[in-house]
Amino acid sequence: MNRPPDLTDPLVLFMPSGKRGRFPRGTPILDAARELGVYVESVCGGRATCGRCQVVVQEGAFAKHKIVSSSDHVSPIGPKEMRCAEKRRVLEGRRLSCAATIEGDLVIDVPQDSVVNAQIVRKAAVDRLIERDPAVQLCYVEVDQPDMHKPLGDLDRLKAMLEKDWGWQDLLVEQHLLSKVQGILRKGNWGVTAAIHQDMETARPTIIDLWPGLHNEAYGIACDIGSTTIAMHLVSLLSGRVVATSGAANPQIRFGEDLMSRVSYVMLHPEGRGAMTKAVRDAISDLARRVCEESGVDPDDILDAVFVGNPIMHHLFLGIDPTELGQAPFALAVSGAVHSWASEIGLKINYGARVYVLPCIAGHVGADAAGATLSEGPHRQDRMMLLVDVGTNAEIVLGNSERVVAASSPTGPAFEGAEISSGQRAAPGAIERVRIDPVTLEPRFKIIGSERWSDEEGFAEEADKLGITGICGSAIIEVVAQMYLAGIVSEDGVIDGTLATRSPRIEQTGRTYSYLLHDGAQRILVTQNDVRAIQLAKAALYAGIKLLMEKQGVDHVDTICFAGAFGSYIDPKYAMVLGLIPDCDLNEVKAVGNAAGTGALMALLNRDHRREIERTVRRINKIETALESKFQQHFVDAMAIPNKVDAFPKLSEVVDLPARKTTETADGLAAPRRRSREERMARRNRA
Amino acid sequence: MNRPPDLTDPLVLFMPSGKRGRFPRGTPILDAARELGVYVESVCGGRATCGRCQVVVQEGAFAKHKIVSSSDHVSPIGPKEMRCAEKRRVLEGRRLSCAATIEGDLVIDVPQDSVVNAQIVRKAAVDRLIERDPAVQLCYVEVDQPDMHKPLGDLDRLKAMLEKDWGWQDLLVEQHLLSKVQGILRKGNWGVTAAIHQDMETARPTIIDLWPGLHNEAYGIACDIGSTTIAMHLVSLLSGRVVATSGAANPQIRFGEDLMSRVSYVMLHPEGRGAMTKAVRDAISDLARRVCEESGVDPDDILDAVFVGNPIMHHLFLGIDPTELGQAPFALAVSGAVHSWASEIGLKINYGARVYVLPCIAGHVGADAAGATLSEGPHRQDRMMLLVDVGTNAEIVLGNSERVVAASSPTGPAFEGAEISSGQRAAPGAIERVRIDPVTLEPRFKIIGSERWSDEEGFAEEADKLGITGICGSAIIEVVAQMYLAGIVSEDGVIDGTLATRSPRIEQTGRTYSYLLHDGAQRILVTQNDVRAIQLAKAALYAGIKLLMEKQGVDHVDTICFAGAFGSYIDPKYAMVLGLIPDCDLNEVKAVGNAAGTGALMALLNRDHRREIERTVRRINKIETALESKFQQHFVDAMAIPNKVDAFPKLSEVVDLPARKTTETADGLAAPRRRSREERMARRNRA
Repeated sequence: MNRPPDLTDPLVLFMPSGKRGRFPRGTPILDAARELGVYVESVCGGRATCGRCQVVVQEGAFAKHKIVSSSDHVSPIGPKEMRCAEKRRVLEGRRLSCAATIEGDLVIDVPQDSVVNAQIVRKAAVDRLIERDPAVQLCYVEVDQPDMHKPLGDLDRLKAMLEKDWGWQDLLVEQHLLSKVQGILRKGNWGVTAAIHQDMETARPTIIDLWPGLHNEAYGIACDIGSTTIAMHLVSLLSGRVVATSGAANPQIRFGEDLMSRVSYVMLHPEGRGAMTKAVRDAISDLARRVCEESGVDPDDILDAVFVGNPIMHHLFLGIDPTELGQAPFALAVSGAVHSWASEIGLKINYGARVYVLPCIAGHVGADAAGATLSEGPHRQDRMMLLVDVGTNAEIVLGNSERVVAASSPTGPAFEGAEISSGQRAAPGAIERVRIDPVTLEPRFKIIGSERWSDEEGFAEEADKLGITGICGSAIIEVVAQMYLAGIVSEDGVIDGTLATRSPRIEQTGRTYSYLLHDGAQRILVTQNDVRAIQLAKAALYAGIKLLMEKQGVDHVDTICFAGAFGSYIDPKYAMVLGLIPDCDLNEVKAVGNAAGTGALMALLNRDHRREIERTVRRINKIETALESKFQQHFVDAMAIPNKVDAFPKLSEVVDLPARKTTETADGLAAPRRRSREERMARRNRA
Repeated sequence: MNRPPDLTDPLVLFMPSGKRGRFPRGTPILDAARELGVYVESVCGGRATCGRCQVVVQEGAFAKHKIVSSSDHVSPIGPKEMRCAEKRRVLEGRRLSCAATIEGDLVIDVPQDSVVNAQIVRKAAVDRLIERDPAVQLCYVEVDQPDMHKPLGDLDRLKAMLEKDWGWQDLLVEQHLLSKVQGILRKGNWGVTAAIHQDMETARPTIIDLWPGLHNEAYGIACDIGSTTIAMHLVSLLSGRVVATSGAANPQIRFGEDLMSRVSYVMLHPEGRGAMTKAVRDAISDLARRVCEESGVDPDDILDAVFVGNPIMHHLFLGIDPTELGQAPFALAVSGAVHSWASEIGLKINYGARVYVLPCIAGHVGADAAGATLSEGPHRQDRMMLLVDVGTNAEIVLGNSERVVAASSPTGPAFEGAEISSGQRAAPGAIERVRIDPVTLEPRFKIIGSERWSDEEGFAEEADKLGITGICGSAIIEVVAQMYLAGIVSEDGVIDGTLATRSPRIEQTGRTYSYLLHDGAQRILVTQNDVRAIQLAKAALYAGIKLLMEKQGVDHVDTICFAGAFGSYIDPKYAMVLGLIPDCDLNEVKAVGNAAGTGALMALLNRDHRREIERTVRRINKIETALESKFQQHFVDAMAIPNKVDAFPKLSEVVDLPARKTTETADGLAAPRRRSREERMARRNRA
């Protein structure tokens, strides 16, 4: 567009952004989009060969909100566009925006959901629109051939063309490409696709790989490095589509089940740190290879990788000694976002691929919590959001657009089933759902691997095959809540021994009692110690939340998000009955799945999300529970079930609480009569 | 300085820059210098511990050009300054500019020549002031200790302090430091010195290494990778002082003596390219280790490295296939400056050290020519400068501040003695100076390793020890010129057989004649073929120069610089007698030694010189002699000795030319009677 547009020029409206402008007849739609800042992908640079820039062209005078059927507002389909439509997948009703020119007023839809240009990310629990602006871009150029009169080097002519055609200035180039540029240019007959990485505006763009001719594939991985599981999304950077999602066990488990035992391992075996780092890096490479195999993607086409993880996994992944994280003051070696290289990390993806690791919030609130924050966005909305990720520590974020606070609470591994006598990992045969009849005290349950309740026909045969092996982590909450609702456990967490006269399921062991959940090849008991462990864990979680609520000056939260596997499996009702979480409309309590991984995905697909979470993390108010004297008081107060009564003014409103010892209500929830504080104190003294 | 200065504030003048300004009493001199843009080194950041910021303080009212003896214009020496003077070398009469504050009008000399703050580079042939502004800077900071209330990572707190104390924003950090930062901070008790690299303004500064406590040493290497020799300067980046200069043979010689045979080797053995690259990189690491050992420097303190070399060495050093340089269109893989890492190149200096390679001018005019250009600076002055580096190809640069042109001429290896029957490398026993009596035709000469002429007493004994083994490359010019001046060789380059009757030194071999320079254990002859080889070489050189002079539209040059070993040893007079170089005042013909290496040194010590040579190389007009039809004509015309007569209108003015066949003049130069062009043509037809 060489002359300024005037009022006789066609008016063009881009949807859904609503951006509009006038452009001279003959302007390619792609040029108009770029001028207005509308993001339309293109690899070939307007040569109508990559097929990435498809748009839906609606012709007509949009000022009257009416589409005119004449087709003279857009150029007819020419031979280049036809040729591309034959080779690439150009969807019906679409045009290549680089080939189609503006000839009259136009409304243009930039597709958000197609295979080619999708921006929808589909996940188990998340449908989310991530606007794309990835850090890596593919740019095809045709380079001038060598000229003895102007003896610029091959690379220099390539850079000049990338500046001319794509506007890239001051390009750097990865060292390993110096020795390849000659061969690639000649193999492509001077046509070459460059992958260019630029993260921040202040960072110099860098050529990270080159291919002869048009290269039309670029992928990224978003990875959550959990203590037990590594989860990965494989995403097309060109379409935004998630092409595969998978997980693998974290092989560091052999160095210690939980995080602190891995830190202990490093303390005792300083030379073993390298092995732990190598183990997790290799596992990530293996997982990347697997997701690539599953989806027919070449690992060499993975050009960008984003990682989240708790502070200890974050450090071990980056090769940093996590010892400092095992002792006060829990100093992170690095808290800000880390920019690195796949080659430095030793990841077996494209050699020039970049690595971005989200910032850590604090010594116990890691890049995974940052990822979950980015995903759920307490900072993006006005309502008070509580975001909880339960693991060995609970990472807690509370806030809204005005202010966000975060802390971690030492819940211990009880919620993961680790300190529970019959606790086990989620695996076939593990009990995952429980109901206890408050009259008969008889249980019924479901096990992983079977759709039937234990009192349904056909369960016995299935159970024979699977075995009934234990209680899975997330079901512990439900068991204890049901025991409480059935009156087996008091508000103080004491298993009521007097009930032994009413039911043989109440068994005495020494001075305390247990509840026999299942009597088979394996006897599955819930012991007094188990209940105590859950009480301690939930008191720690609740005390942390309460502390943050005080810091925010609120006595309730508007919405609660449970992140992580624990959150996905527990029933929020029972979490509230037990008093894990504060008073809240149950409709506003939701499991958000691997929110940390979703945050990593957002940071992969859009650089602005990287800046967003970096900014947010800097602004988050970090609360160290160990330094807060009130934390202890909150902890003691939260030992009761569901908690000190005044913490739950609305519990009876939220769920229809029947009188104690009635049968189960329709939604599977019953609640006992409340004892007064005095009654409870008296009982506690007796116990 | 929080308030703006007013006229009651003391006036401070910095010398030699002449920069001046008013500053409130109590302002440290270092702060005033920084505010005015006066470069004063400092590592400790104003803590009076590194001793780098020494200045000479002259007190008094400088407006009257008089120094007042009262000492109340500068603060007295305090305990910190005293302590530093005890530990570091603070020279007499100097003050630490960070500790001494302004208390009255002052004249301050920033020393340019001290051990601590030297900016003088002393080289064999070059005394040169290189203003320092290196790409690597050391910055000492004291980092906040970890704080659970503000859980910023160690690295993040370090970066925050580097921003607060030194103004570094948006710092990147080398990946390998992530795992070290914890240990270094704790070892230094939270005091740490960071090495920060920033080349261009547009590049983000990067922490490339860290040391516990105050680290007060930073070095760089400037290296010229020649085909036969690798030359290296080791320089303190803090003082600018060259602490060692050394050289080593290029081990690639085993793959081929000259460049083209190395290219042929790569063409025939593509798998051998890696070995050639490794050989030269290893040799550079070895040389760096050696210069460090010689000067007591830790190779780990080398933080920056600058390289120059001809295009083929440039490519092999960077691991690039040089095959394209062996054939038209002689395409460089990369011509622009290359930024890399010591770790990528595999250099055994500091792991985080950076590498900068100067740009190449053209396929046959390399980064060495760029270095020589930067050193001699044709582009920095108004006179027409000719810069010649003679090797297998002669690299020729001609120009002034208005325009610079460059070309290479295929001189072949004759000037290096390679195609001369008795030619040899410069080594003890090689003839390096020759005089021939035009009456008797008897020679006298000097050999390398002896101070005596061959007709002086004591020479025979020395020659017995050394042996007289051949003619060294640079002496070939002198021998042929002397033969011409003695009338043995005609303007057409023919050895006059009729003289055989006058002297037994004229020997017939087949149809041509030779001159017997020495008759001993080895007979050293100058054959007709030798003279022809020199004629061809000098004609090629002169034709290239003539071509560039035409491009510049000049018929003479103001000054001539001979770069490289060849230029250092030949006598410019004989170069002019033979017609290697055009007419020029002999006082303006000089040998500039390893100008390429000096250019590398300049680029090492001052980033502005990098930008200067990048800009200059982009602007240089590159002439490809193979494409210029006039080159052939110039070549034919330049075969005569000294050349076509009209090329040297002023030769008789420059040197006092006696009539032919007189004895040698006082300055060792005699010249034959000029023959007319007609005479010469007639003789040529006879030959």
